[in-house]
Amino acid sequence: MGSASRMKEFLSKMEMELDKTVNFWLKYSHDDKHGGFFTCLSKDGKIYDETKYCWLQGRQVWMYCKLYNTVPKYHTEQVLKAAVKGGEFLMKHVKSPTSDKCFFSVTRDGQPIKVQRTIFSECFYLLAMSELGRATGDQKYKDEAVKMLDKVEHWARWDNTELGRPELSGSPPTNALAVAMIFFNLVDEVCWDDVELQRKYAPLLEWSVEQTLQHLQREGSVVLEYVRTDGTELPGSQGRLINPGHAIETGWFLLQHAVKSNNKSLRESAITDFILKPFKHGWDDVYGGLFSFLDADGISPTQLEWNMKLWWPHNEALIAFLMTFKETRDMQYLDAFEKIFDYSMNHFSDSSNGEWYGYLDREGRPSMDFKGGPFKGCFHVPRCLMMCIQMLKELIAEGNLIKM
Amino acid sequence: MGSASRMKEFLSKMEMELDKTVNFWLKYSHDDKHGGFFTCLSKDGKIYDETKYCWLQGRQVWMYCKLYNTVPKYHTEQVLKAAVKGGEFLMKHVKSPTSDKCFFSVTRDGQPIKVQRTIFSECFYLLAMSELGRATGDQKYKDEAVKMLDKVEHWARWDNTELGRPELSGSPPTNALAVAMIFFNLVDEVCWDDVELQRKYAPLLEWSVEQTLQHLQREGSVVLEYVRTDGTELPGSQGRLINPGHAIETGWFLLQHAVKSNNKSLRESAITDFILKPFKHGWDDVYGGLFSFLDADGISPTQLEWNMKLWWPHNEALIAFLMTFKETRDMQYLDAFEKIFDYSMNHFSDSSNGEWYGYLDREGRPSMDFKGGPFKGCFHVPRCLMMCIQMLKELIAEGNLIKM
Repeated sequence: MGSASRMKEFLSKMEMELDKTVNFWLKYSHDDKHGGFFTCLSKDGKIYDETKYCWLQGRQVWMYCKLYNTVPKYHTEQVLKAAVKGGEFLMKHVKSPTSDKCFFSVTRDGQPIKVQRTIFSECFYLLAMSELGRATGDQKYKDEAVKMLDKVEHWARWDNTELGRPELSGSPPTNALAVAMIFFNLVDEVCWDDVELQRKYAPLLEWSVEQTLQHLQREGSVVLEYVRTDGTELPGSQGRLINPGHAIETGWFLLQHAVKSNNKSLRESAITDFILKPFKHGWDDVYGGLFSFLDADGISPTQLEWNMKLWWPHNEALIAFLMTFKETRDMQYLDAFEKIFDYSMNHFSDSSNGEWYGYLDREGRPSMDFKGGPFKGCFHVPRCLMMCIQMLKELIAEGNLIKM
Repeated sequence: MGSASRMKEFLSKMEMELDKTVNFWLKYSHDDKHGGFFTCLSKDGKIYDETKYCWLQGRQVWMYCKLYNTVPKYHTEQVLKAAVKGGEFLMKHVKSPTSDKCFFSVTRDGQPIKVQRTIFSECFYLLAMSELGRATGDQKYKDEAVKMLDKVEHWARWDNTELGRPELSGSPPTNALAVAMIFFNLVDEVCWDDVELQRKYAPLLEWSVEQTLQHLQREGSVVLEYVRTDGTELPGSQGRLINPGHAIETGWFLLQHAVKSNNKSLRESAITDFILKPFKHGWDDVYGGLFSFLDADGISPTQLEWNMKLWWPHNEALIAFLMTFKETRDMQYLDAFEKIFDYSMNHFSDSSNGEWYGYLDREGRPSMDFKGGPFKGCFHVPRCLMMCIQMLKELIAEGNLIKM
């Protein structure tokens, strides 16, 4: 099959998947009474827990607004209204009334349950605010996003005292990939249409490049999840930990940044070191799918789910390989995309109810059959589908520009 | 096969297993330089991480002392010396110099890495101190155990401010089975040879009975892991969570307490509600072995490892069913013991290197091949074998007293 027809087939399947997925969330997740979203949803949309996990509240507001702002068929009152009610729930109940922290989880009506000593609830809060500002045209949301981005930068770079994590002498200052890489996404989302803000956060992006590249270890052969802040390896299992999906997600964040900033060596490293090598290393040649965790020395990881196949690394890999193909027109990347696409459609997708299963065992059978849970909401699947659809459309529109 | 010969066969296999297991730890786990133990050990004893997880430091000191004090062949200088060096490491490095808290993990040389906002590091610290007091005859260890037991009781019953966990309005006061049930073990271990201390802690045991029985829900059909402090069910996945191995462990703690205190209805409930029903519910009829987590409504649990077979529930079930058989002489309990015994020998035991694999997939294949890790040390396997050997010897010595 020629590349153009392959891409048309991908496009048509992904458009169908996106519709089913968005319909799933539109139909089952809205809390019309309190605002915000139910995310603990069974395979056919039944609510099995009313807890509102705040990463997922923020992510769903962002996702709805992005769909509203960029996909004509989702530019609807229903989508906007749910996003606004979600945004108001975030401002009123997820952000702590006494500090700049956001809660990790709250009850259905917004009473706080748990607070994490990290920056991620706040990251997804600000992504929601940023895109809600564009969807509504209301400046208050954008202001809130910028204010929180400043705060998160402050905690990550300068002083994390307010997070409340005790500093202990046996725990060396650690550079976590999750923190290093998230700023590419945050800055891109908040600033892409604002040159002044781009200038303001340029040093933050420089810092993020430096922090992210520290994770490339052992002569560029491996992306480690945690390193010392001086760029050397940490001892033990934590130091050897590899999260292939996370490396690949970092890869497409880096690739976007490298292309925008016209940085050729960074572009090369994003593709080779963060996308291609982690994919080859992380793919299970026996049963297919990406492992969740590996140990750089081939020792047994200590994470119980290390050999499970989780949905989101496959979403990140689909984005990363299509983006890489679009940048390079090298067929090996389209082939990798197809391999992940086929695995995902055969194992994660639920054609009868919409959305994807999240957690497969090593052999690829759903180990838990819910569509949403404490860490899975309306985010990775629709973000991936939306971005891939956009890229496929661009590729198809450009015609057959493929290097053979 | 007659019951007596079955029991002799169990005994001989378990004695062999205990030897192999203890030899594994004696050979590979000692840190001769700093004291304490390496617990992150591969299947053949290689150290893959030097971090000292403090639950496991305390447990290994307790286990060594118990073996030293009760099993003649382990009443050796080597065992005692390692226990004393472990105990000194605990007092010097695991207990915080500035509070009554113990750390969750420290570096090889004792620098603190992490502190948990719970009571469990402290529980295993005091178990270690208590048995080390008997092994050495040194009163300072017993004093330390009693002092910490008072502290842990204070945190659990009266005021947990010092644990540092924020109280949030959406998180109702919760009764965790792990906290309710552990005091049976703590009080039994610290006080069994001290009538005065038994009197002192009698009210604590009464409280523990009450707290533990609150977990029996839905007309006695199920043991839930978390309930409200008023004894009603919590909402959502947390409220419906079942941990079969934990219920069964609680069962034998309760059974011991009921027998000692001659409480017949508690004895009955321990056997039927906490041991037999959770075993029947928790056993995987397809592949064998005990599930790690279940949901009381049959919904998918959100714990990724819910269908994995972990070593320790099988250790608890072996103890519980042999103890129940010894109490009742009802053959159904010996049959259950045999079923678990056979599963464990066929799947967990490693006859070539000693100790058991800890983490099997649903089908019973080792998913991680290490013998020790952040949560698995020298504790559940040897405790189970030691206790079962003792019970089997008593049963055999009594002759054939079995009701048919």
